[in-house]
Amino acid sequence: MSGSLVVIGTGPGAPSQMTPEAVEAASAAVEFFGYGPYLDRLDLRPDQQRIASDNREELDRAKAALTRAAAGASVAVVSGGDPGVFAMAAAICEAVDAGPPEWRDIDISILPGVTAMLAVAARAGAPLGHDFCAISLSDNLKPWSLIEKRLDAAAQGGFVIALYNPISKARPWQLGSALDLLRAILPAGTPVIFGRAAGRPDERIVVTPLVDADAGQADMATCVIIGSAETRVIDRPGRSALVYTPRFSARAS
Amino acid sequence: MSGSLVVIGTGPGAPSQMTPEAVEAASAAVEFFGYGPYLDRLDLRPDQQRIASDNREELDRAKAALTRAAAGASVAVVSGGDPGVFAMAAAICEAVDAGPPEWRDIDISILPGVTAMLAVAARAGAPLGHDFCAISLSDNLKPWSLIEKRLDAAAQGGFVIALYNPISKARPWQLGSALDLLRAILPAGTPVIFGRAAGRPDERIVVTPLVDADAGQADMATCVIIGSAETRVIDRPGRSALVYTPRFSARAS
Repeated sequence: MSGSLVVIGTGPGAPSQMTPEAVEAASAAVEFFGYGPYLDRLDLRPDQQRIASDNREELDRAKAALTRAAAGASVAVVSGGDPGVFAMAAAICEAVDAGPPEWRDIDISILPGVTAMLAVAARAGAPLGHDFCAISLSDNLKPWSLIEKRLDAAAQGGFVIALYNPISKARPWQLGSALDLLRAILPAGTPVIFGRAAGRPDERIVVTPLVDADAGQADMATCVIIGSAETRVIDRPGRSALVYTPRFSARAS
Repeated sequence: MSGSLVVIGTGPGAPSQMTPEAVEAASAAVEFFGYGPYLDRLDLRPDQQRIASDNREELDRAKAALTRAAAGASVAVVSGGDPGVFAMAAAICEAVDAGPPEWRDIDISILPGVTAMLAVAARAGAPLGHDFCAISLSDNLKPWSLIEKRLDAAAQGGFVIALYNPISKARPWQLGSALDLLRAILPAGTPVIFGRAAGRPDERIVVTPLVDADAGQADMATCVIIGSAETRVIDRPGRSALVYTPRFSARAS
């Protein structure tokens, strides 16, 4: 009697960046759980049901979706970008892990998507062309001291750093603090990319040296990419600059 | 008289995981540069030209493609996965940076795709659900000591680690050495995922505790994901296990 649950990613926002696999899964599902603006990206039919919730209610949303799937419904859980990166796939797994045994019998599938850092990187050049990391700057679910430790390890280790969830009304100071920490480690000229709504009509990509990077350049929908000491900027007359991290590295350990 | 150059990613391999944006760009281009097996994923028409090269000739391929675009051709450079992750986008930027000034006037666009670690993660659960990094294990372009330093920083810092280019005929011992290094830092039970050809008919996803992880389980087309101390495995009777990294973390720094 168990139904099915598919976790899909819409990609960065432009319909042309959502995979056919995810589009097909959305077409086959009946009940849709997700944050409203992500559900808005889908063109749901009248026979499909939209259950929107706030973006801070991920675990409750996961439980509601699993409850419906266990009751036999055909359920889709929708994330922006890739559902496996700081998004609903982990929330679904957490709920299954702590939930009733019958949830382990649900037919669960997770479909990958283009995550924000890849879309922003493509618009800027190739900043993720060499070793990199992704860090969520949200301290809702982990202590700030742990985030600081990871920023330090990543910068000292020569990783390019992509920051997800950089700032929100409830978390106004964290990005500024992170940039200060990184300024103490990385060269002043290290390129920083503020990428918002990559690939969408309201896209805004700003490249600035770390010394001038300001948290005010980011909002909730921004992915911030901080280069390593090896990341370079190619100026092009009449065209936007290309930011890239070379594939080679001469630095010893 | 300058032409255009688009860098596209085919995604992990299944046609249903390539974005419509990349498909459309491939349809519009005339000359295709890439590693043969990636070009094979495209359904080129008789009026489209295939220029295949070996997978270790990335910089030469980039120069050849830029030369043709500068001469007015409509060029596509093709990577598997996402072209910005250890792939052709960085090689194109390197070539532009060191090349003749007229290459800076070429209309270059880079289109993102689903990179291997996202496809493998989706098939396994949500191992990249929290802070993670991507490291190329190839020491062709950087010293091994630097790779060791980054593995150490990532494991000590609590990042999940995705390894690209884990092994090849010319680099037979590096993955084993990396696993040994990580065993000295991470718990013996840390989940390791060997993911090959995710989403394709010959897909093979193997989950094993770090203590048992063996380099022989990987080949050139494998992406290896090593969990953090917080990554968990949910066993499911009659179904494959779900591997995930919780969004929350109680660990202090």
